[in-house]
Amino acid sequence: MTAPPAAPDPAPTRRRFLHQATAAALAGGAAVQGAVADGPAPAGEAFQPYGQPAPAEAGVQRRIGLNHRGLDTNGAAWTPLEQLDGTITPNGLHFVRNHGGTPRIDPAQHRLRLIGRVRQPLQWSVDALLRYPRRAQQAFLECAGNSSAGWFEEPVQRPAGLVHGLLSGAEWAGVPLALLLDEAGVDPQAGWLVATGGDAGAMHVSVPMALARERGLIGLFQNGERLRPENGHPMRLVLPGLKGVLWVKWLNTLEASDQPAMARNETARYTEPLPDGRVRQFAMRMDVKSLITSPSHGQTLPGPGVHEIRGLAWSGHGAIRRVEVSVDGGKHWTEAPLDAPAQAHALSRFRLPWRWDGQPALLQSRATDDRGQVQPAREALLAARGRGGFYHYNAIVTWAVAPHGAVLHSYGQDGFDAF
Amino acid sequence: MTAPPAAPDPAPTRRRFLHQATAAALAGGAAVQGAVADGPAPAGEAFQPYGQPAPAEAGVQRRIGLNHRGLDTNGAAWTPLEQLDGTITPNGLHFVRNHGGTPRIDPAQHRLRLIGRVRQPLQWSVDALLRYPRRAQQAFLECAGNSSAGWFEEPVQRPAGLVHGLLSGAEWAGVPLALLLDEAGVDPQAGWLVATGGDAGAMHVSVPMALARERGLIGLFQNGERLRPENGHPMRLVLPGLKGVLWVKWLNTLEASDQPAMARNETARYTEPLPDGRVRQFAMRMDVKSLITSPSHGQTLPGPGVHEIRGLAWSGHGAIRRVEVSVDGGKHWTEAPLDAPAQAHALSRFRLPWRWDGQPALLQSRATDDRGQVQPAREALLAARGRGGFYHYNAIVTWAVAPHGAVLHSYGQDGFDAF
Repeated sequence: MTAPPAAPDPAPTRRRFLHQATAAALAGGAAVQGAVADGPAPAGEAFQPYGQPAPAEAGVQRRIGLNHRGLDTNGAAWTPLEQLDGTITPNGLHFVRNHGGTPRIDPAQHRLRLIGRVRQPLQWSVDALLRYPRRAQQAFLECAGNSSAGWFEEPVQRPAGLVHGLLSGAEWAGVPLALLLDEAGVDPQAGWLVATGGDAGAMHVSVPMALARERGLIGLFQNGERLRPENGHPMRLVLPGLKGVLWVKWLNTLEASDQPAMARNETARYTEPLPDGRVRQFAMRMDVKSLITSPSHGQTLPGPGVHEIRGLAWSGHGAIRRVEVSVDGGKHWTEAPLDAPAQAHALSRFRLPWRWDGQPALLQSRATDDRGQVQPAREALLAARGRGGFYHYNAIVTWAVAPHGAVLHSYGQDGFDAF
Repeated sequence: MTAPPAAPDPAPTRRRFLHQATAAALAGGAAVQGAVADGPAPAGEAFQPYGQPAPAEAGVQRRIGLNHRGLDTNGAAWTPLEQLDGTITPNGLHFVRNHGGTPRIDPAQHRLRLIGRVRQPLQWSVDALLRYPRRAQQAFLECAGNSSAGWFEEPVQRPAGLVHGLLSGAEWAGVPLALLLDEAGVDPQAGWLVATGGDAGAMHVSVPMALARERGLIGLFQNGERLRPENGHPMRLVLPGLKGVLWVKWLNTLEASDQPAMARNETARYTEPLPDGRVRQFAMRMDVKSLITSPSHGQTLPGPGVHEIRGLAWSGHGAIRRVEVSVDGGKHWTEAPLDAPAQAHALSRFRLPWRWDGQPALLQSRATDDRGQVQPAREALLAARGRGGFYHYNAIVTWAVAPHGAVLHSYGQDGFDAF
C-alpha cells in the first residue's frame, strides 16, 4: 500500500452510475404475446381479522441461530435484510436476541416499578401507563454485537441478514421516561438508571440517567400495534440510537442509582480491550454505519445491464447526512440519494442505479452522519480497535461481484481472489 | 345560529390544555407495596421464524363488514384505529375492501401488461420487475367511501375504526410507474391509464396519466415485506394521496388511452350530484382530514385528570401543516404538536395533553394542509356538497364526553342531548 492515492477521475463514475434510470437503459419488458385479456378470476378467499404473509413468500423468515445446541431459548433470530425493502421491518421479522426464551406475561398482573434514589418509589400497571401521554418515532434497533463476524480474519460467506441482521427498523410509541422520573422525584445525584426485565435471564443493565431522560420511552406499541411477546410485551425500554442490550424487554424494574450496576452485560460482556491497553466500557451509542442489501452475498446478477444498488444507513449519534457508493473497491465514490429526509436514530434507505458491464466489481457504501462522523474502512477500524474487538463493528462492507454475476463477501481489493 | 361568533377567549384553553404534561398533573403511579424484587421467570418460549401478536392482544382485529349476507367475499375489513398508535398500520391490520374475495395468484405465472396507445406493448413477470429501480415512501391509503356514515342524519354510534377505519398507513416500495411508461413509449395524447386487477371483480378504473407518471408506483413491498394477499400480492398500484379504488390490487393490465374507461367505479359509483345540479366525477385526491382516535366512541375516561387527546391527520393534496384541537365544540382551538415532521400524502400523528375537569366536553380536531386547505365543519361540508353525497366525507368529527366519562359520537353542540 505504498502507491500514492489515485487522483479522482469522475469518468468511471459517470459511465457506471445512472443518476436517473432511463427506459433505454432498463428495457426489462418483453413484447406482449398472444391475447392480453385475462378472464376474471373465480371468487376468492374471505376476509381475515388478522392477515398473514402470502404463501409464496413463506421463505422470508427470521433465521434462527442458537448459542448452545439443544437449548432453544438462548440465541438470536436474525432479520433477513436482503429480502426486504424500505426502512420498516414488519413486526413478525424484527430481530430477537433472547437469553432465556420469551416469557408469556399476563399484562393484568405486570407492574413497572421505579425505585432506588427517588423521593417516592412508584409502580404502574399497564392500564395506568396507557393513560399517560405518549410519543411515537421511527428508530433502528441494533445489537452491539451485530456484524461481529467482520472481526474474523477471513470474510464470512453468509447472507447479509445473517451477518448484519441484528438490526431492524420500527415506529415505536410509548410513554416518555422523563414523565415517570419526574413523578417519582429522582435524586439529582442519581446518574444511572438500572433496568431489569422479567425473563429467565433477568436482563439487567445500566443506562446513563441523562440519556434515559432525554430520549427514553416505555415502549408499548411497535409499528402501530402493541408489542409482540418476543419484543417485550407488555413493555420494554426504547432508547433510540443506543445499543440494543439497553432496550430491556419485559421491563419490570427501574432503579435510580448513583453508580452503574456493573452487571454481567457491562463487565464480562459489551466491554473490550483497546490496542493502547485501555478498556472500552459503557459504549452506549451505535456508530454510523451502512450496508448494501442488494446486490449482496448469495444473490446472482442475472446479467449485465442496469441494477439498483440499494441499502440501509443509520447512526446512533444523529441523522444520516450522506451515503456514498463505490463499485471499484473505494477508488471512486458517488452519492446515493435517500428515499426520504433522514430522521435522527432511524434507518435511511439509499439507492443508486448502476450499469454493470459484466466485469468484476467491488461494491461498497459509506455513510456520514450529521455530526460529521464517517463510517470507517475496515483497516482503519482494526487499527483503532485492535484485534480484541467483538462489539460495535461498523466498518465499510464490501460485496465482490464475479464476472458470472455471483456476489461474495470480500475484505476489499483481494476480493477477486475468490474467483 | 343567529348569535354572533364569540370573541376568542384564550383563558379556557390555558386552563384546559397542558402544553407539556407535568408530573404533578399526571400522578398515575401508585406507592410501591411489599417486596420489589421478582425472581427470574422460568425459561420461556423458543424463537419463531415469523412472529405473531401477543395472545393478550387477540382482541385487536380488523372488523369485518359484509355487503351482502351470506356472501363472504364482498365487503370490507376495517382497521381498528382507536386501538393503535403511531402512523404505521401493521400489515395484518391494514384495511381491505374486496368485491370478489382475495385471489391467490401464483407469482411465477403473473404478468403485468402495458398496452393501448404505446409504441410497443410490453409485459413483465414479477422477477423482471424486481430488477427495476424502486422507491419507498410512507403513504396513507383511504377508501373514498371512508367515513360515509357522516352523511347520516343522526350521528352513528360506532367505534372510530368502524366509521373511519377504511384508512391505514404504510411504507410502500415499488417500481416508479414512469419507468414502465417510458419504456413502452406512451403516446403523448394518451391522457388516461386504465388499470385492471386479477380478482373476480376485475376492478377496472381510470387514472389521469399525469398523476400516474408523477406519483405512481407498481407496489411490491408494504412495511418492508412483500405485499400480503389481501393487499394485492404480487403487485398493486400505489398512488399516494389518491382515493383507494385507484390503487388496483392484483394488477395485471395497464392500458394507455385518450379517454377514461367510464367503468362502473367512475360512473355508477364514486360520482355524485352537487346541490347546483352539476355532477362530481373523477374526484381523485383525498381531501384534508383528521380524526381524534382517543378519546373516541366506546371508550370511557376513568376519571377527571390528565388525558392525552391523540389522533391522525392526512391530506391527499400535500403534507399536514397544522392540527388544532377543541374541547368545547369549536369555540376555542389549540394547536396540537405532531410527533414528526409531516410528509406529503402520509399520516401525521398529533397529541395534546388535556386536563378533564369531569364536565361535559365536545372534542374536535381540525387539520390544515400545506396547500392551505382546511378541514370543514360538518355544516359547511353539507352546504357545499348537499345531501346527495356519499364519498369524500372529510368534515370535523365531534366526540362528546359525558360527566361519567362515556364518549359518544355527536354532531356538535347538540351532543349533550345524548346525556
